Amino acid sequence: MLIFIGLGLNDEKDITQRGIEAAKKSEEIFVELYTSPMPNINIQRLEDTIGKKIRVLSREDLEEKSKTLLELARRCVVAILTPGDPMVATTHLALRLQAEQMGIKTRVIHGPSIVSAAPSFAGLHVYRFGPPTTIPHPSPSYRPTSFYNTITQNQARGLHTLLLLDVNHEKKCYMTIPQAIEQLLEIDKEKILENRILVGIARVGSNKPELR
Amino acid sequence: MLIFIGLGLNDEKDITQRGIEAAKKSEEIFVELYTSPMPNINIQRLEDTIGKKIRVLSREDLEEKSKTLLELARRCVVAILTPGDPMVATTHLALRLQAEQMGIKTRVIHGPSIVSAAPSFAGLHVYRFGPPTTIPHPSPSYRPTSFYNTITQNQARGLHTLLLLDVNHEKKCYMTIPQAIEQLLEIDKEKILENRILVGIARVGSNKPELR
Repeated sequence: MLIFIGLGLNDEKDITQRGIEAAKKSEEIFVELYTSPMPNINIQRLEDTIGKKIRVLSREDLEEKSKTLLELARRCVVAILTPGDPMVATTHLALRLQAEQMGIKTRVIHGPSIVSAAPSFAGLHVYRFGPPTTIPHPSPSYRPTSFYNTITQNQARGLHTLLLLDVNHEKKCYMTIPQAIEQLLEIDKEKILENRILVGIARVGSNKPELR
Repeated sequence: MLIFIGLGLNDEKDITQRGIEAAKKSEEIFVELYTSPMPNINIQRLEDTIGKKIRVLSREDLEEKSKTLLELARRCVVAILTPGDPMVATTHLALRLQAEQMGIKTRVIHGPSIVSAAPSFAGLHVYRFGPPTTIPHPSPSYRPTSFYNTITQNQARGLHTLLLLDVNHEKKCYMTIPQAIEQLLEIDKEKILENRILVGIARVGSNKPELR
């Protein structure tokens, strides 16, 4: 059996009671921290709470080498702890599909996700949000504009847009809010962002969240 | 101080460790269960975990009589436990605004929300979702169609729609999936729902979630 357990937003305290309970009953426990950064997480404290050793998975372990993980899940109860809500990340969705196709039972234990926490923390209504999108790190050969299209389309319908900022955990490269604004202004040839309010949110779920 | 703590999706086990910790440190603890049903919640067990008495708030307590609650929050640390993520419900957002305007500090402890859990549980990508909407209970004098407009607009952009089903906790009136489908088909004069896939989800976050 393969159980995906959401770690939530900020640190090891954002996992639910249900998540702790399921982890305690699992035979092998892994954690994945590259799909979203949880800079304040303390694995040691999480191990103390669960009472078991937790092994950290790399992107490779979860993607190219997923077979090893799935074979283990065929024989025993394997838990994978993941940031936010487990199924929001494409990687985990793909792994769950693979498992189900192999006849391995799966279970999902939800956690607080940035997709619902950020809009609600900002005091905005969720039914006024169009699809969220990510601002990727630009490179000389890759300057995507799809996030801008999402904003313009949402704006045309009078909807807010949740912009997630790119994370490249392997390169320790986390986009900052000023970098994101710079990219937004550069791409805004049609000036649709002029006189619009941009809300910057950081560290949601921590004891000191920021909103500007 | 006024702390809003999310209870999550299903029962008293869906609160985060952070939520439990904050509730333990609060002087007065309330729970609100009318914005979303949590049929499996056991208040007694939650009181045992937190080690304090929890008082149940009615809609009236939170809306018309909110002054009493706010006066209490001015003098001591008050926690309000709420289903899902606390700030998704308009009522709590309004209360938080009132508190801030009165100079009372507020804090939000996020919980798993249906807004992110349902799409991810269904295996669908969150960036393919337009705004969510609610199918209300119809009455002879009130047959709203706004949910249908949201669906058509989302569909025109190739986006999924999360349809929440109406809850009238005071009348113990919870819309079922067949009732929702009936309303959808009745309103679908343009036949845009013909040959579309509808995914029905129930009891997300419980040990036995349903997906059809």
